[in-house]
Amino acid sequence: MDSLPKDLFNPLDTENFVDESSRVLEFIADYYKNVENYPVQSQVKAGYLQKLSPNNSAPYFPESLETILGDIQTNILPGLTHWQSPNFFAYFQANASTAAFLGEMLCTGLNVVGFNWISSPAATELEAIVMDWMGKMLKLPQSFLFSGGGGGVLHSSTCEAIVCTLAAARDMALNELGADKITKLVVYGSDQTHFTLQKASKLVGINPNNFRAIKTSTLTGFALAPDDVRATMEADLASGLVPLFLCATIGTTALGAVDSLEEIGQVAKDYKVWFHVDAAYAGSACICPEFRQYLNGIELVDSISMNPHKWFLTNMDCCCLWVKNPSTLVDSLSTSPEILRNKATESKKVVDYKDWQIALSRRFRALKLWLVIRRYGVANLMEHIRSDIKLAKKFEGLVVEDERFEVVVPRKFVLVCFRLKPRRSEEDGSKLNWKLLEEVNSSGKAFMTHAVVDRTFLICCAIGGTFTEERHIDGLWKLIQEKAADLLLFKNGCNIEE
Amino acid sequence: MDSLPKDLFNPLDTENFVDESSRVLEFIADYYKNVENYPVQSQVKAGYLQKLSPNNSAPYFPESLETILGDIQTNILPGLTHWQSPNFFAYFQANASTAAFLGEMLCTGLNVVGFNWISSPAATELEAIVMDWMGKMLKLPQSFLFSGGGGGVLHSSTCEAIVCTLAAARDMALNELGADKITKLVVYGSDQTHFTLQKASKLVGINPNNFRAIKTSTLTGFALAPDDVRATMEADLASGLVPLFLCATIGTTALGAVDSLEEIGQVAKDYKVWFHVDAAYAGSACICPEFRQYLNGIELVDSISMNPHKWFLTNMDCCCLWVKNPSTLVDSLSTSPEILRNKATESKKVVDYKDWQIALSRRFRALKLWLVIRRYGVANLMEHIRSDIKLAKKFEGLVVEDERFEVVVPRKFVLVCFRLKPRRSEEDGSKLNWKLLEEVNSSGKAFMTHAVVDRTFLICCAIGGTFTEERHIDGLWKLIQEKAADLLLFKNGCNIEE
Repeated sequence: MDSLPKDLFNPLDTENFVDESSRVLEFIADYYKNVENYPVQSQVKAGYLQKLSPNNSAPYFPESLETILGDIQTNILPGLTHWQSPNFFAYFQANASTAAFLGEMLCTGLNVVGFNWISSPAATELEAIVMDWMGKMLKLPQSFLFSGGGGGVLHSSTCEAIVCTLAAARDMALNELGADKITKLVVYGSDQTHFTLQKASKLVGINPNNFRAIKTSTLTGFALAPDDVRATMEADLASGLVPLFLCATIGTTALGAVDSLEEIGQVAKDYKVWFHVDAAYAGSACICPEFRQYLNGIELVDSISMNPHKWFLTNMDCCCLWVKNPSTLVDSLSTSPEILRNKATESKKVVDYKDWQIALSRRFRALKLWLVIRRYGVANLMEHIRSDIKLAKKFEGLVVEDERFEVVVPRKFVLVCFRLKPRRSEEDGSKLNWKLLEEVNSSGKAFMTHAVVDRTFLICCAIGGTFTEERHIDGLWKLIQEKAADLLLFKNGCNIEE
Repeated sequence: MDSLPKDLFNPLDTENFVDESSRVLEFIADYYKNVENYPVQSQVKAGYLQKLSPNNSAPYFPESLETILGDIQTNILPGLTHWQSPNFFAYFQANASTAAFLGEMLCTGLNVVGFNWISSPAATELEAIVMDWMGKMLKLPQSFLFSGGGGGVLHSSTCEAIVCTLAAARDMALNELGADKITKLVVYGSDQTHFTLQKASKLVGINPNNFRAIKTSTLTGFALAPDDVRATMEADLASGLVPLFLCATIGTTALGAVDSLEEIGQVAKDYKVWFHVDAAYAGSACICPEFRQYLNGIELVDSISMNPHKWFLTNMDCCCLWVKNPSTLVDSLSTSPEILRNKATESKKVVDYKDWQIALSRRFRALKLWLVIRRYGVANLMEHIRSDIKLAKKFEGLVVEDERFEVVVPRKFVLVCFRLKPRRSEEDGSKLNWKLLEEVNSSGKAFMTHAVVDRTFLICCAIGGTFTEERHIDGLWKLIQEKAADLLLFKNGCNIEE
C-alpha cells in the first residue's frame, strides 16, 4: 500500500485486511509458542523505549507491516511483562483463549456502537441473554436475572461496576436526605477489600474521611467480622453520619479471603445499606457446585460483580455486573438528549445500556463472553477451573512438605500465600522472604507478587494462567527451593544480615 | 475440539488458534463485502433475539465454530445497525480500519495488563510516546506533552476523560475549601455540550442543580458567548457558589459548533476554573493545517480530549486525554496498595497509568493508535480527513442547489444539518422533516439522526464512514429527494396533515 497514490488510500480494502491480519495471527501464534522463553517480568529500565526511538514524531509516510512487526519483536516484546507466560504467577491470572480472541475480533470488526437498543439491537439483546446465562451458571437468584426483574451488564472493570452501583446508592440516599447530605455518607469495606472501593468512593464524591476499611485478622481468615461492621456503623450513626454502601469480597486480591454474605448481608439489611459483592477473582469458581457455597446469602445482596477477564478464559476487558433493581442504576445514570430520542426507548420495552454504565459509547463485548461459553461449554469451563485448582493444591502440597516453608493463609481457590518460616524474628523473616521473592523474580524464570499482613511479608503465588501446566508448577517450586537454599546457606554460613 | 476428552481441554492451542481465527477473518471480510446490502438501521423488533433462542441457558457441551458463525450470520447480523455501512450517516462516524484491527488483535493476543509501569513497561512507554506523537500532530503546546511536563493517556471514552479531570478539579478545590464544600461547586457547559458533561458531573458528586447548560443561539453559531459564561459565573458567585469547571467543545455532536477557546479561555482564567476542551468529534481534523485554527487559544486550557475512535480510523475504543498538570490527576486518582509496591514506582521515574484513569486494569490500547499512525502515516491520515470533507462539501452543495431545502447551521467539518424549508409554519416544517427522516431511515437504504434547535427539527447527516464514497453521497441525496417529493406531493395534493 505504501506506494499507492493518495487518492487510492483505502484503509479497509478487504483483500489487504485478510492478508495483513493473517500475518498478525502468525505473529501472535509465534509469540504463544515462545512466550515461555521470555523473562516473565520485563527486565528493561525506565525510559528504555524512548531511548530506542529518540526521534519522537509520528511518521509522515506509511511504514510497512513487516517493519512494524519487526519493531514489536525487537523493541516491544522485551518491554512486556508476559501475563500469558505459563510462569506468570503474579497479581492474578489474565486468561487468554482462542474463543475470546474470536469474539474480540468480531466485536472489533463489526465495530458497532451499542449505546442504546436502537443503535444496534443485537448488541443489547445478546448481552442481556449472556448475562442471564452467566447468572444461571452462578445460580444467582432469579431476582438478578432479566427474566426475574433484575438484570446484568458488561462493564470494563470492577471499578466501573462499583462506581455505578455507588452512584446509584448515593442518589437513592440523597433523593431522600437532600443533596447537601453527600458529605455525611459512609462507605464500608475491609482492610482486605480491593482498593478499587476506596478509589470509586472518592470518585463519586464520598468524603475520603468517610471510607471505612474495617480491620480483619487471622481469627476470621481475614474475612469481615459482622460484629465489627455493626460496631463501625453504630459509631458512624452516633456521629451523625449515614451508612450508605457495604462491599463484601469473594476471594480478596492479596489473600483470597471470602466474606460471609449470609452474616454480612444481615448487617447490611439491618442498617439499610446497599450491599455489593466483589467476586472479581473467585466468582468464576462458583460455577462449580463445590464452590457455590461461597455465594450462600446472595439473596441479601443488591449487586454483584465478577471478572471473566481474570479466570474465565476471556481476554481483557470483561466485567459482569448484576443488579436486583436496574431502575436504581438508570435513575442515577440516565440521560436523554434529543439526538438519542427514538421510539424503542419511548416504548420502555428495551434496555438502553448507556444508562447502566459510565460512558455513552460501548463495544459489542457480549460477543466475546458468548463465544467463550458456546465454544467451550459449561463442561469445559468447569474443567478449566478444576484443573487450576488441582495445580494450586499440588503447589500448596509442595510448600507444606518442605519444613522450611509454611502456607500462611489457608488456600481456598488458586492463590497460595506462603513464606520461608522466620528463624530469629518476624522482621528477619520478612527480609528473608522479600529477598527470596526478589531472587525468583529477577531470575526471569517466574514472577510472583507479595502481600503484607500484620506486618508479615508473604509471597503470593496466583496459579491459573491459560498455558500453565503441572511441569511449570514443578519448575517454579524447584526455582524457589534453589533460591531459598542459596539464601539460607548464605545467611547461616556467613551470618550476614540484609 | 468438541470430541476431545476433558483432560485435553486446551483453550489456546496455537494451531487451532490460527485456524479458527482465520475462519473469523474470512467471516469479517465477507461482512465488509456485503455490508452495503444490509438495511443500515436494524429492522428487528424488541425482544427478537430472545424469541429466536427461547432456551435461555448456557450450553453444557461445546459447539462448533461453524454453528456459532452460522448463528451470527442468521440471527445477529439482522439485529445490527451497521455502523460500517457506507450508508450510515447517523450520530457520528465510527471509523474502522485494517491497521486499527491489527493493533486490536495484538492488544488482545498479548493480553498484558498495564496498570502500572512494572506490570508491562512497554505498554506504558508506548502509550506515552504515541500520546506525544498525537499531541505534536495537533500542535498542542509543549506543556501538554510528556517532554514538556504535561502528558497524555488513553481512556475508553470522553466520559471517562471528563470524570477524571472533573475529579482532579474537584479535589484541588476541596483541598483548599474543605470537603463539605462539594455541595457548592458548579460545572459549566453550553446547551450544545455533549450530555456526557452533565452525567460526569453528577457521577463525581456535583449537585445536579449546580450544572449550567448555558444557552447558545444562531447569533454565535451555537458557540458559548463569553459574556454569558461570565454572567452565569457572576450570578453563581453572588449566590455563594463556587465555579469549578468549564467545558468547551470543538465540533458539538448535534450541530458541529465550535466554542472559541481564546474567548472562553480568558473567562476560565479570570474565574480560576478548570478549563477542559472536548474535541471528541472534530479534534481529528485539527491535524490538518487548514483546521488547526479551531485550537487557537489551547494554551489557556487545562485538559483536552479527542476520540480517534470516531474519525481517526481507530476502531472502538480509544479516547486521548492530555493534561497540563498530570499531578492533579494523580493526586485525585492514585492508590498505592501493598500488592502494587515496586521499586520503579518508588523511583518516581515512571508513569503508573492506573493513577490517570478510573479503573486499575487497562489494556494495551496504545498499540492500536500506534499501528494506525505508523501504517498510514500523517500524510494519509490528512488525506483521509480531507476526502471526507470533500464528500461533506459535495452533499452540502446538493442541498443548497435544491431550493426546497436549506442548510440550517453552517457546516464546519463533515456534519451537514439541513431540512426541507417549512411552507406554512415552523411546527409544520418540523413534522414534515421528521416524516422525511422516518421515510429515509425506514427504507433501510440510509440512516441519519436529527437535532432540535430552537424548537426546529433538523436532519443531521454525519459523513465520514470508512467505506463511504462519492456514489453513496449521490445515492443518499437521490433517496432524500425521492422521499421528499413523495411527501410534498402527498401534502400538496391531498392536503392531509400529520
